Amino acid sequence: MATEDTASPTGYVQPTVDVEALAALLDGEYAPVRDLVRTNLTAYADILEDAERLGMDAFRERVRDVVVELAATGQTGMGFPKAYGGGGDVGASIAAFETLAFGDLSVLVKTGVQFGLFGGAILHLGTERHHEVYLPRLVTGELMGCFAMTETGHGSDVQSIGTVARYDAESQSFVLTTPDDQARKDYIGNAARHAELAVVFAQLEVGGEQQGVHAFVVPVRSGGQPAPGVRIEDDGRKMGLNGVDNGRLWFDGVRVPREALLDRFAEVTPDGVYRSPIENPGRRFFTMLGTLVQGRVSVAGAAVSTSKVALAIAVKYADRRRQFTAASDTEEQLLLDYGVHQRRLLPLLARTYALHFAQDAVRTRLHEVFSGGAEDELARRELESRAAGLKALATWHATRTIQECREACGGAGYLGVNRFAALKADSDVFTTFEGDNHVLLQLVAKGLLTHYASEFEDLDQRGMVRYVTGLAIETLLERTSAHKLLERVRDLLPGEDKWDQEAGLLDSEYQLAMLRFREEHMLAGVARRLKRGVDQGAHPGNVFSQVQDHVIAVAGAHVERLVLEAFVERVRQLPDGDEKVALGLLLDLFALSTIENDRAWFMEHGRLSGQRSKAIRREVNDLCRKVRPLASGLVDAWNIPPEMLRSPDLLG
Amino acid sequence: MATEDTASPTGYVQPTVDVEALAALLDGEYAPVRDLVRTNLTAYADILEDAERLGMDAFRERVRDVVVELAATGQTGMGFPKAYGGGGDVGASIAAFETLAFGDLSVLVKTGVQFGLFGGAILHLGTERHHEVYLPRLVTGELMGCFAMTETGHGSDVQSIGTVARYDAESQSFVLTTPDDQARKDYIGNAARHAELAVVFAQLEVGGEQQGVHAFVVPVRSGGQPAPGVRIEDDGRKMGLNGVDNGRLWFDGVRVPREALLDRFAEVTPDGVYRSPIENPGRRFFTMLGTLVQGRVSVAGAAVSTSKVALAIAVKYADRRRQFTAASDTEEQLLLDYGVHQRRLLPLLARTYALHFAQDAVRTRLHEVFSGGAEDELARRELESRAAGLKALATWHATRTIQECREACGGAGYLGVNRFAALKADSDVFTTFEGDNHVLLQLVAKGLLTHYASEFEDLDQRGMVRYVTGLAIETLLERTSAHKLLERVRDLLPGEDKWDQEAGLLDSEYQLAMLRFREEHMLAGVARRLKRGVDQGAHPGNVFSQVQDHVIAVAGAHVERLVLEAFVERVRQLPDGDEKVALGLLLDLFALSTIENDRAWFMEHGRLSGQRSKAIRREVNDLCRKVRPLASGLVDAWNIPPEMLRSPDLLG
Repeated sequence: MATEDTASPTGYVQPTVDVEALAALLDGEYAPVRDLVRTNLTAYADILEDAERLGMDAFRERVRDVVVELAATGQTGMGFPKAYGGGGDVGASIAAFETLAFGDLSVLVKTGVQFGLFGGAILHLGTERHHEVYLPRLVTGELMGCFAMTETGHGSDVQSIGTVARYDAESQSFVLTTPDDQARKDYIGNAARHAELAVVFAQLEVGGEQQGVHAFVVPVRSGGQPAPGVRIEDDGRKMGLNGVDNGRLWFDGVRVPREALLDRFAEVTPDGVYRSPIENPGRRFFTMLGTLVQGRVSVAGAAVSTSKVALAIAVKYADRRRQFTAASDTEEQLLLDYGVHQRRLLPLLARTYALHFAQDAVRTRLHEVFSGGAEDELARRELESRAAGLKALATWHATRTIQECREACGGAGYLGVNRFAALKADSDVFTTFEGDNHVLLQLVAKGLLTHYASEFEDLDQRGMVRYVTGLAIETLLERTSAHKLLERVRDLLPGEDKWDQEAGLLDSEYQLAMLRFREEHMLAGVARRLKRGVDQGAHPGNVFSQVQDHVIAVAGAHVERLVLEAFVERVRQLPDGDEKVALGLLLDLFALSTIENDRAWFMEHGRLSGQRSKAIRREVNDLCRKVRPLASGLVDAWNIPPEMLRSPDLLG
Repeated sequence: MATEDTASPTGYVQPTVDVEALAALLDGEYAPVRDLVRTNLTAYADILEDAERLGMDAFRERVRDVVVELAATGQTGMGFPKAYGGGGDVGASIAAFETLAFGDLSVLVKTGVQFGLFGGAILHLGTERHHEVYLPRLVTGELMGCFAMTETGHGSDVQSIGTVARYDAESQSFVLTTPDDQARKDYIGNAARHAELAVVFAQLEVGGEQQGVHAFVVPVRSGGQPAPGVRIEDDGRKMGLNGVDNGRLWFDGVRVPREALLDRFAEVTPDGVYRSPIENPGRRFFTMLGTLVQGRVSVAGAAVSTSKVALAIAVKYADRRRQFTAASDTEEQLLLDYGVHQRRLLPLLARTYALHFAQDAVRTRLHEVFSGGAEDELARRELESRAAGLKALATWHATRTIQECREACGGAGYLGVNRFAALKADSDVFTTFEGDNHVLLQLVAKGLLTHYASEFEDLDQRGMVRYVTGLAIETLLERTSAHKLLERVRDLLPGEDKWDQEAGLLDSEYQLAMLRFREEHMLAGVARRLKRGVDQGAHPGNVFSQVQDHVIAVAGAHVERLVLEAFVERVRQLPDGDEKVALGLLLDLFALSTIENDRAWFMEHGRLSGQRSKAIRREVNDLCRKVRPLASGLVDAWNIPPEMLRSPDLLG
């Protein structure tokens, strides 16, 4: 089927994929650290079997040991300053984490908890005195810690947590208390077994005044026993990630010295005066949270990697498994030669490539923001928004891709010996941890609607509604980047107002214009609906609830536009050649299948005729046929260590 | 939010739900057997903890014991003749299975393997001599067996399996051989540990002639040891269902007597003459498979029940969990009062109700076909098609619903102590076992395209293409039931050709007409594309591959139409009152969200304007708000034993 396309009348020549060259392109500047991680993954490949073979307790110990041993190779400490034993390279630390996600996800998440969340909080919220005391032992994994933010009663809404830290000026110490069971810390990785320290988020109370949520370093365990006043409970077995010891923490008047406050953004003087360089409490809180943006970038990258593992198995299986005779009278047909099988897998493959490049862009931005000395607030907020949005899209994509790939491998995909069982169970929580995806997209929308106004952080849902309804729609739109970019459409595409009818479907400018139009139109729509609701006298909270699906949709549209831009940009930079043609096919497949998925919206808003919508469907089918002969090379270029695919029944 | 709707200007009065009355309506005629199963589920509720607590071996034994003990209560043998210790009621056996699916799914699947697949094969493919020898001990669970059809190399395409059964006239026996590893029986439930007998599907060879696939009773284990010539391997741990001992079987010249052939549809005389009342080999094969239709009806029902469990947890949680202040300045808002949360859960709730009633209809049909003496072939084929289609839609719905509900319960949903982990892992295989969903939908489409022609069973994909291309499109369409039903549209809806623009969105006739139009239009489109491809000289197999997504879409459209019809019919029969109003809301929500999901198609085909499409979106939102206050009652009416929800962290 593919050969008929090798030389078409349009001059299209079917490319071939040089796997090694494409792999080098994908690994990019971080190839050395990625290769170090690949070597380690192969060396510790047994962990995939341990996950099944060992009981939960033994597996937790095994995962801890592996994490400590990985730390000794330097791969987990890339993000810490060299002075404390780290690698001094934020981008490399994310790249290492992304690559580690090809392997067992308990190891990944334990690494994330220890070095990303716990270590990251000490590094970014603490100051030199904390760095000196904790970082050297933390970077080696000798000192294990946990990140105690979420409570049973409050996950997404961290500002409403119940744990209290009251300053006692007399003893110059903070007293931490869990007022009730809803305020217990819950689902805390490393808490049930291994953490000696916890970074605890609590409502700070100084001299009877509430100062909002702050972070404290609290010893929770010593010699394997809970510290005095600390109660620890095991969260027990989970759907997956059973090598990570999640648990619950209660504090019963636990006293820690004044220095336990991580004081980069706020301090309490010995005599009990609260001081912060950031006056606005909401802004202060979100600045603290913002330093933890690395966690979301890491999870997004991990989600892309798990999608790759699933697709690598399913594509390679479909390229060897035959079932039913079809095009031949005697030989059974390869699954990947069936139109529906291509439709199931190849748009997911294209989207995975798209997310890969979008992740590259966010990682690069993160590296710049965290490596540069300058504090550009707008850049930080945009980064936080991108990280939140990409985390949501990439993790949903992973859940969907793993499911589709499992089903595409039939009964064999259900066996524990193959990789899907673990992949599916372990990755499931990605969509809700490090921020629930819906809540994250609301955050993205809030940024768009307020154009990352400095008031941004202080706005709850109702605050946002009030803010937006105070602006003219035009003002709102003029500020958006989609608007600025759309203004260029008429220069680039023919047909003026009919650009959407006359442009070629495979023209990147057309594809970009479609996604920009959608974003801007949706944004205006949300703003109008919010205004109308408030004008009609409804409670802003009720207005928000009614418009909420629209709010989340605009955020999704925004992030998809950014993903497409990153992909287009990357392909444009490439020198001419087969790689560029092959990635161009994936780019078109991603762009058109994205438009196709939302073609109802484009038709409803006059940007797509029924005829053209059908033409896009045909073009997507055609692109699938063109990508099909490249599919195995495209998954090989991810360079996943073969041991990580671990599917003897599927890949032989 | 809901109260503003209690008395609207349109005369709509918000109903209340009498949970007990609705529960009685849902349980219907099988209430007694369902209550027996509920009692048993509660008595054996510990099994949900056993699934986590016990190792795989111990859990398998426990599940076996429970299945045998359940058999003693009569609930698992309902479908067998009374003469052999059964209940003599096919419909009741399905109802019992559906209800059992509220509980641990290993118990369910082990029950299905023993009494449905193994017992069903003996009952439906065997004759009296098999019934007398096996059924009495099989019904009690004393004699365990397995159903050895699937092979490593062939799952969906059973006609191509490799196991051979050669008749040896001299010894009057069959010799079973596994020619290679691709022909080993695989994923066979009960095979790894408990089965003494296997119903083995193999290519029958008599006097050097191939007679196609037939079923044989083969002893595979005695005193815990494999029978001579039989090799058994354990499939090991699976993603879920680890209480079921799936395994692999190889046969090395295993000899069984002539009577081992299950000979309802074919016999071999002692001197080696093959005889069958069904001359056409393809038709014979599909007649044999057709008797196993109960398996698919059972899985469809089980999928609906697992969706109910997930929704019951998520809806009840969302009706008590508060997060963020929104509509009030002081009190946090219930999750279920957020627009997006309603959008996530309530259309799934409506679709679950719709599938419930569709399942009722298919179960009733099954009961009639299998209880009536008359052999109406067309009725049988239609039943097989419905069962296949509903199985596909219901199992995909379950996968999607469980995932959405898990995410809607956040981190708590990820803990093993709550129900989602087990639900998700155990139900995952539903979409690919008892027939891969895509293959099943192709079967449905084949039935539609050939109007269940007697040639039906003999047609492979290419045969179907040739058959269809031999018909005039008009002939094809005139035969379809959607066509006949669409002819009535003009009588029922105003506006003649503009019926789609002028009818009320909440008019069931409009909703039905939309789904009928879609089905008929798609069917004509598929037929045209097949014809065109063949006319242009392409290979029928290639033509099929190119049209395959369209083929599967038409099958989905057909089944959704049947589901809607079943729901409409059920609501029409109800006496006026709150139940009718409440179910009417769910019906509208199901119908309109189904149209909404495919609104792109309706716009592309001129049956929905952009404006009307947006109006449907608003109506769905409005219906969500109306259903919201009823949601808890609607899930309570499923009468799921509270122990089965097992979500202490979520439901308190």
